[in-house]
Amino acid sequence: MTIAINDTHDAALRSWLDSANDATSDFPIQNLPLGRFRGDNTQPWRLGVAIGDRIVDLQKAGLIDTQNVDAVLASDLSARQALRRALSAGLRAGSADRARFEAALLAQSDVALGLPCDVRDYTDFYTSVHHATTIGKQFRPDNPLLPNYKWVPIGYHGRASSIMASGTSFRRPNGQLKAPDADTPRLAPCARLDYELELGMIVGRGNDAGTPVGMAQAEDHVFGLALFNDWSARDIQGWEYQPLGPFLSKNFASTLSPWVVTMEALAPFRAPFVRPEGDPQPLPYLDSPDNRAHGAIDIELEVWLQTAQMRQNGHAGERLSCSNYKDAYWTVAQLVAHHTVNGCNLASGDLFGSGTLSGPAPEQGGSLMELSQGGKRAIAFANGESRTWLQDGDSIILRGYCQRDGFRRIGFGECRGTVLAAPALG
Amino acid sequence: MTIAINDTHDAALRSWLDSANDATSDFPIQNLPLGRFRGDNTQPWRLGVAIGDRIVDLQKAGLIDTQNVDAVLASDLSARQALRRALSAGLRAGSADRARFEAALLAQSDVALGLPCDVRDYTDFYTSVHHATTIGKQFRPDNPLLPNYKWVPIGYHGRASSIMASGTSFRRPNGQLKAPDADTPRLAPCARLDYELELGMIVGRGNDAGTPVGMAQAEDHVFGLALFNDWSARDIQGWEYQPLGPFLSKNFASTLSPWVVTMEALAPFRAPFVRPEGDPQPLPYLDSPDNRAHGAIDIELEVWLQTAQMRQNGHAGERLSCSNYKDAYWTVAQLVAHHTVNGCNLASGDLFGSGTLSGPAPEQGGSLMELSQGGKRAIAFANGESRTWLQDGDSIILRGYCQRDGFRRIGFGECRGTVLAAPALG
Repeated sequence: MTIAINDTHDAALRSWLDSANDATSDFPIQNLPLGRFRGDNTQPWRLGVAIGDRIVDLQKAGLIDTQNVDAVLASDLSARQALRRALSAGLRAGSADRARFEAALLAQSDVALGLPCDVRDYTDFYTSVHHATTIGKQFRPDNPLLPNYKWVPIGYHGRASSIMASGTSFRRPNGQLKAPDADTPRLAPCARLDYELELGMIVGRGNDAGTPVGMAQAEDHVFGLALFNDWSARDIQGWEYQPLGPFLSKNFASTLSPWVVTMEALAPFRAPFVRPEGDPQPLPYLDSPDNRAHGAIDIELEVWLQTAQMRQNGHAGERLSCSNYKDAYWTVAQLVAHHTVNGCNLASGDLFGSGTLSGPAPEQGGSLMELSQGGKRAIAFANGESRTWLQDGDSIILRGYCQRDGFRRIGFGECRGTVLAAPALG
Repeated sequence: MTIAINDTHDAALRSWLDSANDATSDFPIQNLPLGRFRGDNTQPWRLGVAIGDRIVDLQKAGLIDTQNVDAVLASDLSARQALRRALSAGLRAGSADRARFEAALLAQSDVALGLPCDVRDYTDFYTSVHHATTIGKQFRPDNPLLPNYKWVPIGYHGRASSIMASGTSFRRPNGQLKAPDADTPRLAPCARLDYELELGMIVGRGNDAGTPVGMAQAEDHVFGLALFNDWSARDIQGWEYQPLGPFLSKNFASTLSPWVVTMEALAPFRAPFVRPEGDPQPLPYLDSPDNRAHGAIDIELEVWLQTAQMRQNGHAGERLSCSNYKDAYWTVAQLVAHHTVNGCNLASGDLFGSGTLSGPAPEQGGSLMELSQGGKRAIAFANGESRTWLQDGDSIILRGYCQRDGFRRIGFGECRGTVLAAPALG
């Protein structure tokens, strides 16, 4: 059976696995995201693809011959498409290969999900002009959006070692804090702990040092997207970040969701990339006809907060905000072209963070810094609790999904992390 | 034979290998730095220790049973000291094990030297107050040294993938440049290419996430030091660096020297760490009696430039500047304690850059940015050439050594990189 890649998006396509056909599932047969799982922590990670409430073990299904995720990420476009077509063919209703695929299925609830790859270099960008403007006002009231913002896809290097799998708890950081009216800083637990709603881009094929990747090839170097929470200590950040950028305010923990939604799965949800009236057009190395026509991606994003009290009461949490990735000021292709224009070499398993994805409206802020106006406005919940910053025991859950008339909704699963108390000061 | 660790520093100690006894050698028996080598690029890297003009293949000499450098880096203090004692015993004149060690020797000139480890996360610090002040004046004339400098060991994350072995050439980066009087930026080859004289600290044992390393244990987590050149594109940096720090101005190339001089070898060259009169004392988490007594390290550092013309004429180059690591404002232990105070997890093979190590005098600047006063003053050479910034074909060579009355001089070898022309603009 030969399947055209567009047929893998067909909304009418159903799987022989019932849970994949459930309209509320993030993982219908049109999605097929890549991740890693294991039975317990004595076993090595294995590569799998989510389908409904199950996982296809890719090697058991005969679809790959390696558990080296970098080798899979480095596949070229035709190999990625061939894997998608093979999964779509084997999992669809009426497949002659059903027995082979069924033998390779595990329940997601029976295994641990890990990081989708061993993150190598991690770069965080700053692609939401709405976030940059709102945060800029708080750090630099006179000068919120710097003159380079509309020309340079601003980014900086982050810490890979502290990127954690969804579900991992972490300790509130201690750090140097200095109150505006204090003469000297002191060491104390962060009192302004925040999350940042981001998407993570997983690099597929790398490039050689000294060899820039142009816009026309840029997306070929991206395997797919996942949800990413760039936890942030705002009080540490405010004191440490000049002149070289955020450091200990960010590198204590970041959380990456387990499933990488492939660029192939996202194809139906592409959107035009349009610069607001009056803004400069991108320089030629950041511009292409394809990027203008469909450089953006329409992904709905949500942030949920579940306090310890809510968890005890079996309450799934409250939604803090929602926004859409299509409001980003720079596209995936532009980030790759910019990152490599100086010859910087990317490698399979590198991670780009999008930066906080805030929407244009104040209630679409992708962080508490924005929603609480720097801690000045408490956010009240139905159970009587409220927050300006995160408290110990709070969980933040990110969710994302694509929907469009005529297509099946595809989801990103969830990205969850929980704050524990800070270590005692020595 | 049982050897006390202090005996391995004995200036009277001689090797049966003549080249190790040469007073000009960087690698006497008192040094014993760790590195990696291979015959050609079809072979895997092997672990070795430099002695005179040779290398001891550690596995062939029966001293390790792995080629996994992370496992060696992660050794605890007693294992590191045991390795040093075994090397010292086997290589010293009169050793009963001479035959075994001799069979494990290779000529340095017969092999390729690589990066001493696969660099995982890389953090660059900013520990020279002299550099921070001089550079700060150029980027922010009104505000050269920011209020946090004397409290926070300023650092930021760098790019690991583009760290190159000594001897590697790299292409001049293209990037967005904006002249002060231009309305818009443009893409062009960097016109203000610079080096930065740094030391690199190689992390030995890691720490668990959420578990800070205190000052008393901090140096146990550092395996040793090497030379490090953080090549910098000053024009790209000036336009891109606000508000999140340097990015494409740094991540096109950095060069690390092949030999890691161990903390054990550096022991005789420790120096008091003294804050200048009137400066604040470090916060308690950055302070310890040991750090005050001997937190600093007396390492002489030199930068040499060899132009293409000098190379053609067999001229080794001209010395641009020299400085000393003991003038740094923050010590190795303070960098570890600060980096982990928020619970950030370090791993074997992480690299810390010291930041540009400029001395107090203007001629001790560790970069052209300082020596040429931001490009305003050309540096003239005896052959009639001059430089304000690096030109294509220029090689920069960093050197370092420790010397003290009553001890053998120990050296760091060299850290060399050469600038090639920028790729053509697409």
